[in-house]
Amino acid sequence: MEKFQLDTSIFVPLYQQLKEHIIEKIDKKIWKPGDKIYSENQLYEMFAVSRNTAKRAIEDLVQEGILYRIQGKGTFVSLPKIEQSLSAFYSFSEVLSKKGLKPKDVVLGIKVIEASHQVAKALRIEKGEQVVMLQRIRYANDEPIILESSYLPKILINNEEKLKFVACTPLYNILNNNFNISVNSAKETFEPTLIREEEKFHLEVEVGSPALLLERIAYDPSKKPVEFCKSIVRGDRCKFYTELV
Amino acid sequence: MEKFQLDTSIFVPLYQQLKEHIIEKIDKKIWKPGDKIYSENQLYEMFAVSRNTAKRAIEDLVQEGILYRIQGKGTFVSLPKIEQSLSAFYSFSEVLSKKGLKPKDVVLGIKVIEASHQVAKALRIEKGEQVVMLQRIRYANDEPIILESSYLPKILINNEEKLKFVACTPLYNILNNNFNISVNSAKETFEPTLIREEEKFHLEVEVGSPALLLERIAYDPSKKPVEFCKSIVRGDRCKFYTELV
Repeated sequence: MEKFQLDTSIFVPLYQQLKEHIIEKIDKKIWKPGDKIYSENQLYEMFAVSRNTAKRAIEDLVQEGILYRIQGKGTFVSLPKIEQSLSAFYSFSEVLSKKGLKPKDVVLGIKVIEASHQVAKALRIEKGEQVVMLQRIRYANDEPIILESSYLPKILINNEEKLKFVACTPLYNILNNNFNISVNSAKETFEPTLIREEEKFHLEVEVGSPALLLERIAYDPSKKPVEFCKSIVRGDRCKFYTELV
Repeated sequence: MEKFQLDTSIFVPLYQQLKEHIIEKIDKKIWKPGDKIYSENQLYEMFAVSRNTAKRAIEDLVQEGILYRIQGKGTFVSLPKIEQSLSAFYSFSEVLSKKGLKPKDVVLGIKVIEASHQVAKALRIEKGEQVVMLQRIRYANDEPIILESSYLPKILINNEEKLKFVACTPLYNILNNNFNISVNSAKETFEPTLIREEEKFHLEVEVGSPALLLERIAYDPSKKPVEFCKSIVRGDRCKFYTELV
């Protein structure tokens, strides 16, 4: 069995050194996605650390999405997170296709509802006015990644049944082709959140897992809001980046 | 006491309607930051909802950073989240000053350490090479917001004592003025995470609260990495935005 000496003389905590050691092995492709890694018991024997230190390192890596657990089977190396740019308009399906992942959308529902305070404010309409709510789960290789709820002013959508085709075409193409709505700018906000009970069901991750709440308001060329979209993005499967100059 | 009828006929869950009702009151400045709001008991009487529904709405709003609790005192309205742009280079101190908040930095430590695998990879140096680690807490009006750890190749920093002045001047100004290092581009990644024990201590929020992990690599004009920075940002106090065209 591999032996590795953690350095007790330096300032970096032992669980952190153990984490770094595991990350390095994954980075260097010694452990590949899907590979089973040592158990906590093995780790704590190998590195002569306390059981707590081993547990802490593993838990951190699971929470960071670098490892995942299967109950009764062990701990495995995750696929790398899906990176998405924040600097440009993007289609999630396109992002996936470029990375060799198969996109799939499942439409959970298309409903006409009354705008809540938040939706009305975003779309600059009156509270209680009709909006079309379109809810989808976005998959990558059959793994649910994003739970997305779009709200569109009903007045712009003469026949919401046409939104059904959103499963295979980007929403903005559908809006353009079927409803003559063109989107040319957007404001997006990002904040961290935790997975809730109802999202757990759709996204297949534990309640309390880290997630990102994205809220986007999309505008037409006259700066009129045409869509308000709330997405819950799995933190263990996605990260975002931006390049600054 | 105010009475409000939640709508059981529509598709929106009751706790969600209750949340919306509270958010609306805050949005319309009927409840202002620092105001005490109804207790769970009062809410569940007023709205004729179950105690669980009231509890759920409050817990969600606390987790979202819209409300905060003080043990034994009650639940209060939070200050609005600090919004930061993702589209441009920003100085956190400048962002705060523009919003009328008082910036303050506390330097936790300046140490020369050996580069870990992750730091070495980001800075494109060898693992074990010396780096200067600068750790700071960034405050807004005496509230800790960000825990920031910067790593700089030691070879670029002849005298790390000069970094001490970072408490009142942006780091990139110090790098430029004292070390002749100019930063003109960066790549930043964003992913959601949870507050850990050691961050709880510095950021004064509960373990398991939502937070954002920001990692930035800053480059000089020749595209050489000159800084790797890891920040933990409180999710209850900050949100980020980007504008897309």
